[in-house]
Order: sequence, then C-alpha cells, then structure tokens
Amino acid sequence: MHLVAIGGSDAGISAALRARELDPAVDVTVVVADSYPNFSICGIPYYFSREVDRWQSLAHRTRADLEATGMRLRLDTLATGIDVAERKLAVRNADGSEDTIAYDGLMVGTGASPSTAGIAGIGGHDGLGPDDGVHLLHSMGDTFALERYLEEREPQTAIIVGAGYVGLEMAEALTVRGLAVTQLQRGPEVLSTLDPELGVLVHEELFRHGVDVVTGARVAAVARHDGRLVVFGQDESGAFERGADLVLVVVGVRPNTGLLTGAGATTGPGGAVVVDERMRTGLPHVWAAGDGVVTHHRLLGVTYLPLGTTAHKQGRVAGENAIGGDARFTGSVGTQVVKVFDLVAARTGLRDREAVGAGLEPRSATAIADDHKAYYPGATPISIRITGDTSDGRLLGAQLVGARGAEIAKRVDTFATALHHGMTVEAMSDLDLSYTPPLGSPWDAVQVATQAWSRDVNRRTPGIVPS
Amino acid sequence: MHLVAIGGSDAGISAALRARELDPAVDVTVVVADSYPNFSICGIPYYFSREVDRWQSLAHRTRADLEATGMRLRLDTLATGIDVAERKLAVRNADGSEDTIAYDGLMVGTGASPSTAGIAGIGGHDGLGPDDGVHLLHSMGDTFALERYLEEREPQTAIIVGAGYVGLEMAEALTVRGLAVTQLQRGPEVLSTLDPELGVLVHEELFRHGVDVVTGARVAAVARHDGRLVVFGQDESGAFERGADLVLVVVGVRPNTGLLTGAGATTGPGGAVVVDERMRTGLPHVWAAGDGVVTHHRLLGVTYLPLGTTAHKQGRVAGENAIGGDARFTGSVGTQVVKVFDLVAARTGLRDREAVGAGLEPRSATAIADDHKAYYPGATPISIRITGDTSDGRLLGAQLVGARGAEIAKRVDTFATALHHGMTVEAMSDLDLSYTPPLGSPWDAVQVATQAWSRDVNRRTPGIVPS
Repeated sequence: MHLVAIGGSDAGISAALRARELDPAVDVTVVVADSYPNFSICGIPYYFSREVDRWQSLAHRTRADLEATGMRLRLDTLATGIDVAERKLAVRNADGSEDTIAYDGLMVGTGASPSTAGIAGIGGHDGLGPDDGVHLLHSMGDTFALERYLEEREPQTAIIVGAGYVGLEMAEALTVRGLAVTQLQRGPEVLSTLDPELGVLVHEELFRHGVDVVTGARVAAVARHDGRLVVFGQDESGAFERGADLVLVVVGVRPNTGLLTGAGATTGPGGAVVVDERMRTGLPHVWAAGDGVVTHHRLLGVTYLPLGTTAHKQGRVAGENAIGGDARFTGSVGTQVVKVFDLVAARTGLRDREAVGAGLEPRSATAIADDHKAYYPGATPISIRITGDTSDGRLLGAQLVGARGAEIAKRVDTFATALHHGMTVEAMSDLDLSYTPPLGSPWDAVQVATQAWSRDVNRRTPGIVPS
Repeated sequence: MHLVAIGGSDAGISAALRARELDPAVDVTVVVADSYPNFSICGIPYYFSREVDRWQSLAHRTRADLEATGMRLRLDTLATGIDVAERKLAVRNADGSEDTIAYDGLMVGTGASPSTAGIAGIGGHDGLGPDDGVHLLHSMGDTFALERYLEEREPQTAIIVGAGYVGLEMAEALTVRGLAVTQLQRGPEVLSTLDPELGVLVHEELFRHGVDVVTGARVAAVARHDGRLVVFGQDESGAFERGADLVLVVVGVRPNTGLLTGAGATTGPGGAVVVDERMRTGLPHVWAAGDGVVTHHRLLGVTYLPLGTTAHKQGRVAGENAIGGDARFTGSVGTQVVKVFDLVAARTGLRDREAVGAGLEPRSATAIADDHKAYYPGATPISIRITGDTSDGRLLGAQLVGARGAEIAKRVDTFATALHHGMTVEAMSDLDLSYTPPLGSPWDAVQVATQAWSRDVNRRTPGIVPS
C-alpha cells in the first residue's frame, strides 16, 4: 500500500501522520511544493513581531521528526497532474525534470492561495510585487520576502489591506516593529467575522495601540508614485489615496483546485473541490482535505470555511480512509479565535445574519460578565453575544471579546462543544462548569450570557423560551 | 403564593432569585440563620490572603441588591421546625422569641457543617475552640473568629489538618500572611480528589512555597500543652506530635439534615436528605437543595458531592418548581477546580478507582501537552489524565494540572460538557475547538490527551478503541 499525500501543510501532513500511526506497514510519500513541510502558517505574524525569533521554530515538526515517523518527503516537488485510471501522479522536480509517482491511494491537500480581491496593480508580469514593497502573506516564501523588505528597506509606514485574522495580527506585529500602520477594511467594522458591536472593541484596541483604522474603505488599486506606494480607493467620504512605504494585502484566500478539477473533480461552495464527509472526491482512490475543499458544517451543511483546525481534522480522516478505514469528518462549527494586542476575540457557530441566511429564526443578545469573581483581583469583563433559534431554543452561536488572560479561547470551546451536540441555550445552565473565585463564577460567564439571552428573548416575546 | 426559602447561601438565594425572576407576583421570604446572606464561602481564603481587603466584598450580592429583587430577608433567624401538614415553619429570632411563618412552598437549603473527622479535643463544652486557636472554617462567623485570632495573637506557625480545596487555599493564604504552615493530610497525597500522580504536582507547588506537607498523617487529637497547641496522630513512621500557634481543621463537611428529617424526610448517600431530580423531598410542598441533599450525578447516579455550583443549579430548579414549574436538575459531573499558588488543578467525571467502584471498566492515561504552541513565548505544560471506559470507549473523566494562565479551568469545562453528552474519548477529536498560536494548538491540549489515551489503550489492548 502506497499512500501519496500532496501538500506539506496541515491536511497533507495530518493524513500522512494518521496513516503511519494506524498502519506502520503503509508506505507514505508526501509531495511538497516548497522546502518547508509542516510549517505553522498561523505563526507567521509572531515571527514578524519577533516573539518567534527563528523562522525554523515555526515548524510544527522538523523534517527529521516527520521522517522519523516513517514517511518519505519529496520537497520542492510540484504535483502537475493526476492520472486517475492508472493511479499515477505527475510531478515536476526542482531541477525542472518530470517524474511520475505510482500510488494506491492519493490524498490531495493543495490548500489555497492568497486572494488579491481584484485590486489592480498587484502581481502578474506588470504588477507590483515584494521587491516593490507590495506583499501577500501565505507561505514561508512570502514570509522571507517580507522580512527581507523590512530589513533592507526599513519602511516606516505600512498600509494593511484587510482586517481579518491575519490582517489584525500583522497590524500588531508591524506596530511592534515600529511601523506606523494604517489598516483599511472594506466592511463597516474590523474583524467582520464578529458582529460590529463586538468588532468595535477590537477596533478600539487597535486605536489604543496607534493603528490608524479606516473602515468602509474599498481598495481599487496600488501604484508606485513618486517613489512611494499609493493605495487608491473609495471610502465613505469618496475617493481616497494613501501613501506608505509598504503595502500588505491580506484579504482572504481562494482554493487551489486545478490539480483535482483537471482530473475530473467538481467544485462547490467557494469554488472549492467537493468532497463528502469521508473526504472522497468522487475520483476513485483520490481523497482531498484542507483549504482546497468544501467544509461540512454542522449548522450550515456544505460550505467553504478554510481553517487550519479543520484541515487537520479532514486530513486525519482522509489519511485513515485512504488506507482502508471508514472515518467521517463530523463537521465544523466554525470556531475561531484571535489575539489582537491585549484583547482576545472568538466566535463559534452562526451570527444572526448568517443564521437568517440559512433559513433559521435567530435572535441575538449581548451580556457582559466578569471572567471571575469581582472581589478577587484582576477581574475583567467579557462581552458575550449569544445567538439562539427562537423556534426551538437551540444555541446557534456565540461571540466573545475580552482581555487576554480572561480564558476567552477556552470559553468559546465550551460553546463549540455545546453546538456540536445541538444544545439549547436554556440547557447551557445545566452544564457542570468549573468554579473557583480566581478563575470563574458559580454561574460561569458562559452561563450568565445564555441566561441573559433567555431573559431577553422572553421579555421581547414571552413564551418562546421554556422557563 | 408565598415561597419561603431557608438558608442564605447558594441554594436558598438561588431558589429565591429564580422564583422572583420567573414570577414577580410571588412573595418570597428567605430565612437566614446569620447576618450574612449570599456570601461567597469559596472566597474566604482570599480574605485571609488579603487579596480581598474588605469582608463585605465577599457578598455575591448585598442585602440591598437582594431586596431590590423583591425578596424579603429574615436575618439572624433560625428555622427550628416544619409543620408539613399546616405548611408552617417555626423559627427562632435573634432575641430568642419564637415565630411561625406560613408558606405555600418551602425550599430548604440548610447546607452542611464542617466536620471534625472525629478528632478529639475540638469543640463542644470542653474542647478547644477559636479563642484557643483551634479553628474550623465554613461561615462568616468562623472567618471573623480566625481573623481576630490572627490579628490579636499574631501566631507564627499554623497546622492545617486537611489538604482538600479549602485546606490548600488556606495553606497559601496563611503562607502569604507570613505564617510557617504545616499541612497534615490523611491520604497518600494532597488533593485526594486527583490521582496521586497529579496530586504530587500540587504537593511540589506547596513545597516550593515553603509549606511543610506531611502525607499519611492521621490526626487523633488536638490539645493545649505548655501554652502551645499540639496535634497528636499517627503517620507512616509511627506516632507523631506537632506543635503550632494555630490549628485549622478543614476536613470536609457533613450535611445539615435535622430540620428535614425532623419533618419526616429520609436520608441517603453521605447522610444527606434524599431529593429527586426535581428537588422534591417527598414531603408535600417541601423542596430542598444544596449541601444538605444528595447529588444526582450523570455517571454515578445518586451520590453526595456538595459543591457550590451544584447548590446554585439545584436551588434554581427548586425555586422554579416550588412556584409551579417543572424544572429538572440534569445532574452533576463533579467538575472542580482549585488554584494553589501559581498552579491550577481541575477534575471532572470519574477517576479510575471511582469508575471501578461504579462497576465500570476504566483505563487511565496521562499526557503532557503545551497550553499553546511552543514557539510562542510563555508556553507551559499541562498534565492531563484521561479516564475512559474500555468497554464502550466512553469518556469517564479528566484531571488537569498546570500553570495559572494555562486556561486549565476552562479546558476542564470542555471535558465537562463532553461528559454531559456522554461522548467517547475518540469523538473528542471531532470537536471544533479554537486555535491561535498564543492560546492553543491545532489539536488542543484536550485532544492531544484524548488521542494519547486512545493510542495507549490500543497499544495495551489492540482493537478496543475504534480507529
């Protein structure tokens, strides 16, 4: 049995590890397009903030660690085509030579590429690129290019286009590095994965640390002008242009699907390759996982929601099934968390708008609860916004923002676990959560928030929530 | 409708609050034996450590807060008898006068009293008490007595008998106050609610902060000898005696049941009053909740496990039902957490031994996982011991010990939520837990531990865990 996994990031490596763990007799080859297998892409901003001092530390596992599990790595090797009928993968080596690799099972984890959201003047033959100070950030190659630019050109000012997870983390990192940062966000508030009333708390945190945030700013083009980079666009007061020494565009990703669609796979939501819950592509002996494929979501059904945690899970399932197992990816609930300076923001499940889009009847309510008993020093407030279904009382989602140290990241996990099990908002009060005054309350903040939702809904529409 | 709640602690106040919340037309009277309604007993150690500087801050709600909800408080009023047939409660006022209070529904939350575990020389007419430097610690009255002793007598040395939650917190508090503390623990390791291999980490933390811990020490008696307090007992090397200026006995509680048994209620596990999941005592119109009643446990059935969080939940259920509702206490899973100096220890569910006692076929395995990605500064290891059922793969329990700041308290909540839903150990990997490098890992420490359990069990007995 020879399993070939394509991709050195979360999905490919997870599949390879799982296969080796379950059956040490299986041959596993991982085909990696660059020289950096199993690097933590999520850790890149901390390299720029210099909290991680060696880029090598960003590896989840070293090459030696990986090879010690018995897998074979083919680095700097680009997968170029799949011959499904013959079970052969065509690859191009670093020296330009071509090869084919025979497989019994194939797991494709080609991931996604950074989007430029149609901004003119970036990339391609004529567009601006890293040497000009215009950067995308998705790979170790991008990382080296940006670091080189920072060191050699010593930019004083930066414009970050996008205020999602990476955008926010990079705003912090570049601020820490001493750059004056302007953050341009297309939507009405930063971190558009939260409702604006919670996003504004993140906005304030950025402001407190000197980041100049401009919301409602649609960027149309980047150009070089009198030796400086200029970003053109429209904001609420009309056309704008802003100059900077460095422009970083971090506006999301689009799935890399060419290899699979070339072999006959179909695409679905977000243009990602369709897979079933067993990570089957529909092509015989070909599985796929990660940012290149659709996401089974426990509340939304099939969607596209590329996340590292999901890639790990999907890859693990694909690796198990590719060697004859019958594992199932039981579905994401969209749990996410980000640290921005001294604040942590997290979400899981659906927000009001997303739930309406899914045909549900949601209502949301925000409560503020201390992370621990106020009499014990250091208590800080957590803003928790609960979304529940008014038709059946079911919990649909939770958003949390609070201070670092307020255990936001694990409180969202309680909600994520509850969502996994389809709990009602009301039943959250039944959970036997831990309590000691320095770390919680007899009703944890999680339950203070769900109880507040029930009261709010009952007040507005008596009788909806069983009491 | 007149609801009378007996007890000013968690159960009584929760019942009263819930009744007023659900039906503002209900008359509610709370009968409180002392002058301190709704005080946070769990917070007392932090008053002694002076992290809480005013004892008044320990009130979850002030008297004014409580009265603002519309409930009536009768402080310094002792409930002395229940006339079930006539629905009348006999009480004795502070001035010694007797009264009866008519009720439509009665909720009894008389709680528990500190045990002295049969140690001779304490309490009663002839025994040593607070004025002699021998203290129990369960009420605000006990708190004032100990604080007065500390301030007036300035003891330099203390013996704490017991190394459970309160004993450990008081070892920290008295150490912080400058006393040399000896902690005597009957069992083989401190914090006997954890397996010794995790308890030893707490032991080491105490040692690091100068607490002299003696395990395997059975205390038989306390006496005053040459003007000093002496504790007599047996440890592993035979009889011992140890002197100190102050002796604090914190060895658990026994339920206060006299009021209810006097009215015909029956007792069960731990000598606590039997109630059903609706908090009914079997006596018409009489509900009970809190440390005086049995605990419905999702894994053990009916047991006795007095915890503040449970008292809040049971009280809330009782309050709802006493005014005509039909709420159910869905059961504890025994979640507990304690901070000891810079360490946090938590548990939920069952340990091996407890599971065997319940007729299950458990196996336990310990993993050590970083609280967040090691490349990001400040990562610390968490020891996580998972107990699972080898017959059906079900998660039975988890114990966690790690540094303060490692989000132990909320990680145990993920396990508690999983236990609530009867998840298998294997299915924990399906949970969509949050990840960002400063606060977690793509597989959270929770999942690293459950995956390690599966590997361990499979290695020892292949085929038990589906893979």
